[in-house]
Amino acid sequence: MAQKPSIPKGTRDFSPIEVAKRSYIINTIKFQFVKFGFQPIETPSFENSDTLMGKYGEEGDRLIFKILNSGDFLAKADKDAYKNEDSLKLTSSISEKALRYDLTVPFARYVVQHQNELEFPFKRYQIQPVWRADRPQKGRFREFFQCDADVVGSDSLWQEVEFVQLYDTVFTALQLEGVTIKINNRKILSGFAEVIGEQDKLIDFTVALDKLDKIGEQGVKDEMLQKGISEEALKKIQPIFGMKGTFNDKIAILHTILETSEIGKKGIEELQFIQKAISEMPLKTAVLDLDVTLARGLNYYTGAIFEVAAPNTVKMGSIGGGGRYDDLTGIFGLKNMSGVGISFGLDRIYLVLEELDLFPTTVSAATKVLVINFGEDEAMYGLKAVQKLREAGIAAELYPDAAKMKKQMNHANKRNIPFVILAGAEEIKAEVYGLKNMVSGNQEKLSLEDLIDTLK
Amino acid sequence: MAQKPSIPKGTRDFSPIEVAKRSYIINTIKFQFVKFGFQPIETPSFENSDTLMGKYGEEGDRLIFKILNSGDFLAKADKDAYKNEDSLKLTSSISEKALRYDLTVPFARYVVQHQNELEFPFKRYQIQPVWRADRPQKGRFREFFQCDADVVGSDSLWQEVEFVQLYDTVFTALQLEGVTIKINNRKILSGFAEVIGEQDKLIDFTVALDKLDKIGEQGVKDEMLQKGISEEALKKIQPIFGMKGTFNDKIAILHTILETSEIGKKGIEELQFIQKAISEMPLKTAVLDLDVTLARGLNYYTGAIFEVAAPNTVKMGSIGGGGRYDDLTGIFGLKNMSGVGISFGLDRIYLVLEELDLFPTTVSAATKVLVINFGEDEAMYGLKAVQKLREAGIAAELYPDAAKMKKQMNHANKRNIPFVILAGAEEIKAEVYGLKNMVSGNQEKLSLEDLIDTLK
Repeated sequence: MAQKPSIPKGTRDFSPIEVAKRSYIINTIKFQFVKFGFQPIETPSFENSDTLMGKYGEEGDRLIFKILNSGDFLAKADKDAYKNEDSLKLTSSISEKALRYDLTVPFARYVVQHQNELEFPFKRYQIQPVWRADRPQKGRFREFFQCDADVVGSDSLWQEVEFVQLYDTVFTALQLEGVTIKINNRKILSGFAEVIGEQDKLIDFTVALDKLDKIGEQGVKDEMLQKGISEEALKKIQPIFGMKGTFNDKIAILHTILETSEIGKKGIEELQFIQKAISEMPLKTAVLDLDVTLARGLNYYTGAIFEVAAPNTVKMGSIGGGGRYDDLTGIFGLKNMSGVGISFGLDRIYLVLEELDLFPTTVSAATKVLVINFGEDEAMYGLKAVQKLREAGIAAELYPDAAKMKKQMNHANKRNIPFVILAGAEEIKAEVYGLKNMVSGNQEKLSLEDLIDTLK
Repeated sequence: MAQKPSIPKGTRDFSPIEVAKRSYIINTIKFQFVKFGFQPIETPSFENSDTLMGKYGEEGDRLIFKILNSGDFLAKADKDAYKNEDSLKLTSSISEKALRYDLTVPFARYVVQHQNELEFPFKRYQIQPVWRADRPQKGRFREFFQCDADVVGSDSLWQEVEFVQLYDTVFTALQLEGVTIKINNRKILSGFAEVIGEQDKLIDFTVALDKLDKIGEQGVKDEMLQKGISEEALKKIQPIFGMKGTFNDKIAILHTILETSEIGKKGIEELQFIQKAISEMPLKTAVLDLDVTLARGLNYYTGAIFEVAAPNTVKMGSIGGGGRYDDLTGIFGLKNMSGVGISFGLDRIYLVLEELDLFPTTVSAATKVLVINFGEDEAMYGLKAVQKLREAGIAAELYPDAAKMKKQMNHANKRNIPFVILAGAEEIKAEVYGLKNMVSGNQEKLSLEDLIDTLK
């Protein structure tokens, strides 16, 4: 029985032009990663479940794709869970492996497992797919690529400086000018919680603050009050709702808010270090901006927090993000390994480049010339030219069948092949090839040598 | 609790140098695929189970990795199978998706699903990982890449000719000279079965014949007798055990064996077409050889069968294979779509290049120069040079911490970084950079401009 073919929801087929455009973005990022001294690693698509479970919170655990054990998996199933038909409890006894959920936890695992082979600070990049059983929606997929660069083994702030430069360099190379690199620091957020005397509510506080963009000042305040943060506390941090102006203007406001907080002042110092370095080495097309509402996965980051916004002309969520996490590898038993890294959001960058028409027209290295097939002798004569053209680096093809000329010309047109070669008995005798420009319609007869020169 | 980190058996972490070597092979193949007119597609890592199950035989079904449904998967579990603790029967009710097992079935699914967007003949290449729950052993992994090129929509033999040229071109580009491209044709095998009157035993016959290399002539004959093929039949095909000499010598022998078989003679004709074309356009470094014992997945192939053997100096199984299958997309309801394709065995090619020491020394585009960090001012001065070097296309790094000089020099050495930049207060004042060659030990002071020129 023939099946109506389809793919699982949240997954995608990529056509040749889509692969070409994605490769253009990936190769641009990769090229800059290498220039910045990052080295590639790759880790398996699935990890032992132990490696992943419990690393992303309860919600994350739910969204991890689990792989069913092979063979008679029920033989080892948890008896109680089986009797009670408890899916959640049964899972770990019938599934030992799971698809990776991000590249950061596998990277931490890699660093610990290979620590004796690595030279620290270790700068690695990794561009691989990840999988999440999230509900699919516009721009959110169950399989998508992450493009990460991280350094592990040094807490130097020069790395934060270089990551800002890396973002700027990559987006400039992609001709995506005018992105905003937002920066914040976990220590600023801790400072806020400290000055309002609500250290124990740091998470509630920052989760609410992070929503300023979406729900506005009053919405944030309402949520904070609801979470038990006092009116008095809100008054103390009132200035953060009105932060405007330059990076330095905002720093000045932070100084007044955080003057009594040691950790807050440390955060300011770190931000200033980065800002000073960037002002001495101006960015090419991006803008560095301080956004004290930026939190991202707060429990994760301990220092700098980054997020990149697309140019104002495009409506799009963040196209990149990252930050510093002081104990990346602790979960796997290797303490005191500070890490800092950033990620590029491939799918969203793709949509932005598409919307702004920024993909180069040459993005797909497609076939340049098609030999029209007039029959066995002509095909052989044509294929000899094809072989020489390929040796000269030109993508060339022979139409495989001696079909009607019109069909073959249509094939060239539909595939946007700009030239065709026409060679019949006459050309074979004269040892030339007819070359037709499919755009201009011009036609000329050329020796093999001239043919190669013309198409080069 | 810290976990001892490990990865699932049969999977691999790839270190920077391994990624670089694999990328070198993949990029070489990809470059030739494009020159031959193949276009890239990508399909999801997991497919609906329906798409994969039943396409690879019972053994294949067992080796497909199944993904457990998310959430309360037991809610939809098959009641009877659950009660009987029948793993096999239960699977389809608790798992809807599975990791792809090869690239051919997903390609067939892609062609049928997107048939209205595609221009035929459609030449696609696809380089992606596949997963098999096989028992891991030396050179056999549970996650590995396949590199496939196929044409669908034409039964022209010129495509077989071009695939032979493609193999030759790729292995020549990899400097792997002296591979043997073995060719056979399903019609030859059918012809053998016909002339000995054992058409119904075609599979048994070819499975036994395929083992000639391993178990020798007597072993093959014993197996055939065991399968019920008569002594008389064996006598008729005796000449195939002694086939030696050139391609044409073997063709001559085939003519005598198969003179009464129409299908056999068609097979000879096809082989001769390919051989004639290749003799007019000689291969660069490979040898085309006729191997009538070659069967591979016989039920699959209907015309040409290919297999590539590494040079004689290396002990290694086949490093590539493929063939023609006349009804590629029939399983998904699209009839009469002839396909032909080949595959490159990435892992084995890697091992062969490693053994023969054929990886270029420049394979890893690693960092060329490291700036030694003497403190904040010097680091800033150094990073300015790093920025300019990167803009000039040179991979450059700043050591992030002002660590002891010896530690930083060791870092450069361990990472095989060939140059370091030394710039202290004196150099800053004179607006120069000290450049040290880590191999020769030579040191010179250069302006930023000269520094860039020297490192370029």
